[in-house]
Amino acid sequence: MSSLIPDSHLDLLHRPLYCHLATVSPAGRPQSNPMWVSWDGTHLRFTHTNTRRKYAQLQANPHLSISIVDPDNMTRYLEVRATVAEIVPDPTGAEYDALSQRYGRGPQIPPDAADRVIILAAPYHVTTRG
Amino acid sequence: MSSLIPDSHLDLLHRPLYCHLATVSPAGRPQSNPMWVSWDGTHLRFTHTNTRRKYAQLQANPHLSISIVDPDNMTRYLEVRATVAEIVPDPTGAEYDALSQRYGRGPQIPPDAADRVIILAAPYHVTTRG
Repeated sequence: MSSLIPDSHLDLLHRPLYCHLATVSPAGRPQSNPMWVSWDGTHLRFTHTNTRRKYAQLQANPHLSISIVDPDNMTRYLEVRATVAEIVPDPTGAEYDALSQRYGRGPQIPPDAADRVIILAAPYHVTTRG
Repeated sequence: MSSLIPDSHLDLLHRPLYCHLATVSPAGRPQSNPMWVSWDGTHLRFTHTNTRRKYAQLQANPHLSISIVDPDNMTRYLEVRATVAEIVPDPTGAEYDALSQRYGRGPQIPPDAADRVIILAAPYHVTTRG
């Protein structure tokens, strides 16, 4: 378990809560998108495809940040800044399927499974509140 | 009303939902934070102070992005990319007070009212889903 993520806020990564993922375009402009995420004790894990713009952006600028709010207490939140450590092909869509089940949407292999990748990101800075 | 924000998703700005605000540090690294926001028909409005780092960052890089998810349908969301158009002093904390009431936290003048500013941001790109 990374000591960067305090035990007090680990539940926000363990519960199936949407994170909001911030990335930076090549022009230096931020983007923000709700995303599925999981935490394996070392890395934030996202499912993505290698055909979309955000994938290219993360290869150009591997820094990202996520924030997650506790829906039961909106003043309680976690921000994790991280760097892409590895991008792993997921041609069977297994990670997507696992995240789909985690988020209560049932088992499903995505139609774009052949292009699926797992983005693994290593935290370097954490902020918590509440 | 800005034609950039489609009527179909305007409720996400009108309801008192937290946005997640993405900004970029001088080193080109993204940050993500839950924030109060309001929409006046032309600008996104945020309350902030002129003493915090994000304020300096937004002066250096005026681009920001917010995303808001519909808590009643997590696949429905709005992303608004915007540029800081104006920063207005709010030394009585009136904007903070208005946002506090909007978000159901009652009237309150913040202790740092003297340093309060209103950040007005003009949308330039909108993405919706659901």
